Amino acid sequence: MKDIPYKTYLTEDELPGAWYNMRADMKVKPAPLLNPATMKPVTADELERVFCRELVRQELDDSSQFIPIPDEVLRFYRMFRPSPLVRAYFLEKALGTPAKIYYKFEGNNTSGSHKLNSAVAQAYYAKAQGLKGVTTETGAGQWGTALSMACAFFGLDCQVFMVKCSYEQKPFRREVMRTYGADVTPSPSMKTAVGRAINAAHPGTTGSLGCAISEAVEAATSQEGYRYVLGSVLAQVLLHQSIIGLESHAAFRKLGERPDVIIGCAGGGSNLGGLIAPFMGEKLRGEADYRIIAVEPASCPSFTRGRYAYDFCDTGRVCPLQKMYTLGHDFIPSASHAGGLRYHGMSATLSELYSQGLMEARAVEQTSVFAAAQQFARVEGILPAPESSHAIRAAIDEALRCKEEGRSETILFGLTGTGYFDMVAYQKFNDGSMCDYIPTDGELEQSFAKLPPQP
Amino acid sequence: MKDIPYKTYLTEDELPGAWYNMRADMKVKPAPLLNPATMKPVTADELERVFCRELVRQELDDSSQFIPIPDEVLRFYRMFRPSPLVRAYFLEKALGTPAKIYYKFEGNNTSGSHKLNSAVAQAYYAKAQGLKGVTTETGAGQWGTALSMACAFFGLDCQVFMVKCSYEQKPFRREVMRTYGADVTPSPSMKTAVGRAINAAHPGTTGSLGCAISEAVEAATSQEGYRYVLGSVLAQVLLHQSIIGLESHAAFRKLGERPDVIIGCAGGGSNLGGLIAPFMGEKLRGEADYRIIAVEPASCPSFTRGRYAYDFCDTGRVCPLQKMYTLGHDFIPSASHAGGLRYHGMSATLSELYSQGLMEARAVEQTSVFAAAQQFARVEGILPAPESSHAIRAAIDEALRCKEEGRSETILFGLTGTGYFDMVAYQKFNDGSMCDYIPTDGELEQSFAKLPPQP
Repeated sequence: MKDIPYKTYLTEDELPGAWYNMRADMKVKPAPLLNPATMKPVTADELERVFCRELVRQELDDSSQFIPIPDEVLRFYRMFRPSPLVRAYFLEKALGTPAKIYYKFEGNNTSGSHKLNSAVAQAYYAKAQGLKGVTTETGAGQWGTALSMACAFFGLDCQVFMVKCSYEQKPFRREVMRTYGADVTPSPSMKTAVGRAINAAHPGTTGSLGCAISEAVEAATSQEGYRYVLGSVLAQVLLHQSIIGLESHAAFRKLGERPDVIIGCAGGGSNLGGLIAPFMGEKLRGEADYRIIAVEPASCPSFTRGRYAYDFCDTGRVCPLQKMYTLGHDFIPSASHAGGLRYHGMSATLSELYSQGLMEARAVEQTSVFAAAQQFARVEGILPAPESSHAIRAAIDEALRCKEEGRSETILFGLTGTGYFDMVAYQKFNDGSMCDYIPTDGELEQSFAKLPPQP
Repeated sequence: MKDIPYKTYLTEDELPGAWYNMRADMKVKPAPLLNPATMKPVTADELERVFCRELVRQELDDSSQFIPIPDEVLRFYRMFRPSPLVRAYFLEKALGTPAKIYYKFEGNNTSGSHKLNSAVAQAYYAKAQGLKGVTTETGAGQWGTALSMACAFFGLDCQVFMVKCSYEQKPFRREVMRTYGADVTPSPSMKTAVGRAINAAHPGTTGSLGCAISEAVEAATSQEGYRYVLGSVLAQVLLHQSIIGLESHAAFRKLGERPDVIIGCAGGGSNLGGLIAPFMGEKLRGEADYRIIAVEPASCPSFTRGRYAYDFCDTGRVCPLQKMYTLGHDFIPSASHAGGLRYHGMSATLSELYSQGLMEARAVEQTSVFAAAQQFARVEGILPAPESSHAIRAAIDEALRCKEEGRSETILFGLTGTGYFDMVAYQKFNDGSMCDYIPTDGELEQSFAKLPPQP
């Protein structure tokens, strides 16, 4: 049986040897991070108190086009990469579309998502710096799982502050992290001053991502030999995630094809920024054109309804100010089931690209997202994560547009991960009891009012 | 960075086009299934009342060496196969062994295990026969999940009787099946006569696999256009699972290597029989020799402590008698966490091969299995299923033997699946509250006393 392959794999020798830094090809660079006390750009010295040295260098480097991937990281990548570029033949058939649909699948590793691409890099640099361990926060649990795996591999201590309601509602995520030797603490905890203060002020609180970030930063800066690491939003994370796009780009070249439309879900932007990187690079250099679409939840619509302004990256206001599309650092999105997309802001790099009109964005409601997830699962045999399913929704909608217009465009979307730990959400969908929630203009205005004074 | 690859993939065009039937190369064939009423070999007609026509043909065919894989099944296989043959470099390094360790990984599909290989074949033949749907039972839930996926794909109704305690303890497995459109009923139910009788006799019972089988068979035979399907034990299932071994064999040839030791976990035998098939074929034909090791739980030791005798395949005694290594159809193994290995008997084909001394068997305790699982997860980046981890335990033990003896043997083991739905077990291990249980000789004697009269 000869056929165009369903899955295109690069060989391990074809794994890209360097990450691609989109910022190098941007004429207008992302605005610098600001120190909220001085309103001046943060310095490397200031950042190194919190982050690993090499990662700070990468964070501030907006001119190197490529940054070599260390051999130790490449070896780890080879355990689960290259990831497949899959032709969704059965989905195409189910939709009756003339479009060709491809997806880059990042879920074939135990962390279940693309987060491992950056976790292993960050753990490696922490180890290379001679640190004892790292601290982080996790909400949905994907980042915490990936970091636990990476730390187990490099023999680093891993302290995870997990939002208390997730800790209690997702005990299995917690156990995966523990199996990898991580120390998982429900946040707010009594381990940090900020945690104790929040517990005193709000007895019985089930926590928030902002609070967990504050605790993780305090834990890193108050222990000798520790630094704080973050799984999205930062430029360094998009850099590491460029491996997704570089592999996709090479696989398309191998197939003799090219995508017309590239679609990714967007929370903090780590997956989207990684998937589109080399394609956006061609666009920035005027070598090729692509339609690029960011898909976000209607419940947390930072691109489509946010302000492009300087804001805090965390609710606790311990992090620098970043210029980005934001709903306001006090914005609490409704309890959607795509925990990985419930962030009030967006990567500064993607924000600048979006403001320049180099990409589109759309917001989708979660019931329509789960309908797409179920349709995809039944024909393509993969149970997608709710986050990833935002991209599936848009890919299906684009394929149906192609059908209507009689165009055989080539669509690429990022399938960031699997939904094994999201069955409570699927159950609600299966039972017909899932709701949608869209913030009112009034709610957003209230939140925008709390934006810090702009420089 | 050039290196021997971590993962060896065949191309999709190199996917085997036919399943291999070990029985064709056996001089002494597995003993025939018997009708318990007549004690005569069951006929195709008798079996076709319960099973699909083509599957009955495969079940009774012990002479065709190869059976072509239908194109529709091959197309489905291409969504998730070939599966990778992985070199466990990091495990080797952690053990300091001169042995080369390879594993064939079957967990990269949503069903999370090798069960999908047979589920898609069985669903295809049911559809080709013009049936409306199929019924089955599931304990741990892997088979039920795989069958739900296959039925969704072919548009067949899928009725799963899930052992009530699993239904309640593993709600997420149940939701995966529902997401694929399956109808999942806790067993014993009030839907069947046998279920109602059991509920009346044992109010509040949480069910057993034997009871669920009886309900599924009754549901199949009492509905027009339905048949019953089973995910292990039967010769047809081993046939479909031979794809695992055929791919492994071809990948080794591609690498210019060959395994010395082949290790698989054994419950009903579907994975083990599939993994070893072409290697055992060479052994049966006198073309090559391999050490082949079956690994079973010490709590359910059918090979190592069972009797080779005719016994019922189910507790409810509705199935034919099969000659196999058995602990007795009334044997209830302790509540181990490897639900997929809690079967009282063993494939008739493997039983005959074992009785001829063509393979070894060993029993391992679950705490040592989870220690191996954790060690593997931390260096190889895959969270293994408890069932699969039985093979990991033996592979590590063999690699340590090689270290002691200074031998660089090549070890292949089957990594049948992932442990995402087994975190309760991992939690017990992480908490240090996991126990081992080994049946006493007295318990086994009691169970053997209930074996049916032998022909």
